[in-house]
Amino acid sequence: MKKILFLFLALPFFAIAQNNEDSIFIKKLSDDIFTNGKAYDLLYQLTKKVGGRLAGSPQFAKAVQWGKITMQSIGADTVYLQECMLPHWVRGNGDKVSIVELNKKPVSISLDALALGNSLGNGKTVTAEVIAVKDFAELEKRKDEIKGKIVFFNYPFNPTYIIPGRAYGESGVYRHSGPSRAAKYGAVAVVIRSLTEATDNNPHTGAMQYDSAFAKIPAAALGLKDADKLWNECKNGKVKIAVIMHGKQMPDTIGHNVIAELKGTEFPDEFITVGGHLDSWDVNEGAHDDGAGIVHTIEVLRALRAVGYHPKHSIRFVLFANEENGLRGGTKYAEVAKSKNEKHIFALESDEGGFTPRGFGFGVSPAQYQKVLAWQNLLKPYGGGDFVNGGGGADIGPLARTFKTPVAGLNPDNQRYFDIHHARSDVFESVNKRELLLGAINMSALIYLIDKYGL
Amino acid sequence: MKKILFLFLALPFFAIAQNNEDSIFIKKLSDDIFTNGKAYDLLYQLTKKVGGRLAGSPQFAKAVQWGKITMQSIGADTVYLQECMLPHWVRGNGDKVSIVELNKKPVSISLDALALGNSLGNGKTVTAEVIAVKDFAELEKRKDEIKGKIVFFNYPFNPTYIIPGRAYGESGVYRHSGPSRAAKYGAVAVVIRSLTEATDNNPHTGAMQYDSAFAKIPAAALGLKDADKLWNECKNGKVKIAVIMHGKQMPDTIGHNVIAELKGTEFPDEFITVGGHLDSWDVNEGAHDDGAGIVHTIEVLRALRAVGYHPKHSIRFVLFANEENGLRGGTKYAEVAKSKNEKHIFALESDEGGFTPRGFGFGVSPAQYQKVLAWQNLLKPYGGGDFVNGGGGADIGPLARTFKTPVAGLNPDNQRYFDIHHARSDVFESVNKRELLLGAINMSALIYLIDKYGL
Repeated sequence: MKKILFLFLALPFFAIAQNNEDSIFIKKLSDDIFTNGKAYDLLYQLTKKVGGRLAGSPQFAKAVQWGKITMQSIGADTVYLQECMLPHWVRGNGDKVSIVELNKKPVSISLDALALGNSLGNGKTVTAEVIAVKDFAELEKRKDEIKGKIVFFNYPFNPTYIIPGRAYGESGVYRHSGPSRAAKYGAVAVVIRSLTEATDNNPHTGAMQYDSAFAKIPAAALGLKDADKLWNECKNGKVKIAVIMHGKQMPDTIGHNVIAELKGTEFPDEFITVGGHLDSWDVNEGAHDDGAGIVHTIEVLRALRAVGYHPKHSIRFVLFANEENGLRGGTKYAEVAKSKNEKHIFALESDEGGFTPRGFGFGVSPAQYQKVLAWQNLLKPYGGGDFVNGGGGADIGPLARTFKTPVAGLNPDNQRYFDIHHARSDVFESVNKRELLLGAINMSALIYLIDKYGL
Repeated sequence: MKKILFLFLALPFFAIAQNNEDSIFIKKLSDDIFTNGKAYDLLYQLTKKVGGRLAGSPQFAKAVQWGKITMQSIGADTVYLQECMLPHWVRGNGDKVSIVELNKKPVSISLDALALGNSLGNGKTVTAEVIAVKDFAELEKRKDEIKGKIVFFNYPFNPTYIIPGRAYGESGVYRHSGPSRAAKYGAVAVVIRSLTEATDNNPHTGAMQYDSAFAKIPAAALGLKDADKLWNECKNGKVKIAVIMHGKQMPDTIGHNVIAELKGTEFPDEFITVGGHLDSWDVNEGAHDDGAGIVHTIEVLRALRAVGYHPKHSIRFVLFANEENGLRGGTKYAEVAKSKNEKHIFALESDEGGFTPRGFGFGVSPAQYQKVLAWQNLLKPYGGGDFVNGGGGADIGPLARTFKTPVAGLNPDNQRYFDIHHARSDVFESVNKRELLLGAINMSALIYLIDKYGL
């Protein structure tokens, strides 16, 4: 009885003592980040001085140098570049989509459009009648009408989902595969409704993938107001539009992941990775996607240094080279890790924007998840306490698949995310300083706990 | 044993059945608000067509008419105006604060400033040396230096609090009481650091209150960049500034609470109140403060109607007349309720902005709070599940004090709130549609639950 009683008494005491030490440390991180945090200023530099930085572009190379110099000045033990080949898609200038005929009457109505990433154009005007369909089911039904026409996929971004990411998941297939699905039946171009429910008319670009079995036809996204306009005109009668696109796929270029390290004091050969992706789309400043993840990553490095934390494990802070249109950075990182037979105990990614954090999505075993849940109350005061076992990040995916490394992704509040995602409006001004810093606070706290207690 | 077993089995079943019916109904409200919600369009009308609407102003009278017509068209059973006297403070034109001497050298450096609400000016230039203090403790220490000087309170808005409202609570006393505290020692004017940690230089106005024992000196808030500039100059030597203010207190005017009702089917004489405040400061559009609360209130009315809900209790939707500088609307509402001996079973306010909801702060008894907690899981999917027993709202405060009515306030994420609160930047564009609608979803769900189950 006594022994059992002792256990009952001792366990909570131990847990409280441990929690207390940890909560004091996390408060120290939080105070330092709120008071001395550099994330917001660094985001200003990355978005305004470097700007949009599509993989393979000169701006991306500039971002690599910026990342290297910045992490060196923050005080990493080492900073180095990891070479990887990057896709090099170039949008070109002068893209244009316009309505040129309504019921055989010539008109000239410009529609706000952006070419989909990876899509090709030859700078020639493709003019044809529009077949407006809501979804693939309707496309299949009307497949005999498609030849020589321009298909318009007007699949709506479901507004009733509480988590807008679910609507993105559903609509995403029209951006990714719509062009080839239409080309299969002889379409000469595709336009899609942008994957958003924003109240403005900005079109949203993003990666598409051609199926090599079919013609590589030009493809563009329309802003919502113009998508509605085109849809309504199509309901009213025959509509002819002109599509001029200039996208080109250039030969792969050399690019780099930027990697900083804090060397572990006890387990220098066991790695924890924290990262985001340095590339962005070319039409905006990539502020939320994924400038936020980049400056979160650097801020975790800065804060751990600032409070004098010496990690047991080596921590890698990785600015991945190419998430948007190829995942070459994350793939290379995992390949090199495998070739060196490295031991990776955890990886964390921030690639959901710089909004108020809500929690983390983990990709861990049930036993590991039980361990993680014990930290939930430590993060709750900072907003990051909503844990779910399901999550990770695109760039750390190859690592997880290679080593079964446990992973997690920061889950910020994402109500605003798809308003600006891949649109011109993803700019520095759309990021709030406190919301951004809170993300770094929760990430640094989680990294501290994982480094201290393992998984 | 069998009986106990039966209880164990039956209770969860009953709870699940009940929850299931409720969760289906709440989903219906949510789907309707996300799909057909008018809150965002109404906010556009209120902010852009009516604009800033300080109590007593012509714009406020316009807002009253807008509120009445809007709630009539939404389909309330009755809509009426409840007269109340309103304070009538007028800012006037041409306010200006500038540095005119640095170490006896004439300069002319404009500082971005806004008169504090209720503060008086006579349009004359008050020029004097600045005594820059951090807080009241420093003021007391230097009280012998104050006579004939302008006191500058530079109390910082603590950035390390996770909930910025806590920093607002701490700094607020300098806005509210700073002018008279300085006038007590002979100060001729007061300027304060704005109650914000925004990254821009917008000054933030808000109510101050003169202590009638001392001179009613002009008082203004400075934007943070200019507060820092003035503070630094004061550290470097003697600084003289010129303050010209035009604030005037006019005789009280007649104004109105706007009240819509849905009549209760079972308890028509028992009232549930939902509200926000219709007045705003004059320097902005009052979008978050409290346009959001106004359109939340109207949206709850619209949604309950739209899904065909017939409340058991009478529900009042109240656009309160005067929160910012007098609380006359809420006071009148409680007075009239008392004079009619009405029975008020619950009141809910939204006055913390139109950001993603996190939960509700209740002002209820421990027994009532236990009942409320049973609904937490129903609201969690919609983001409003963080409950705390502590909260309410300014406008429903008099009702709570008069009848001990249980109350609650919507608690949105408030990381961005004090960036725009009482500043020029509290405009329609700072409100996100989905975040706004989610607030109305959670409010309408809570009102439904309280109407159905009582408290």
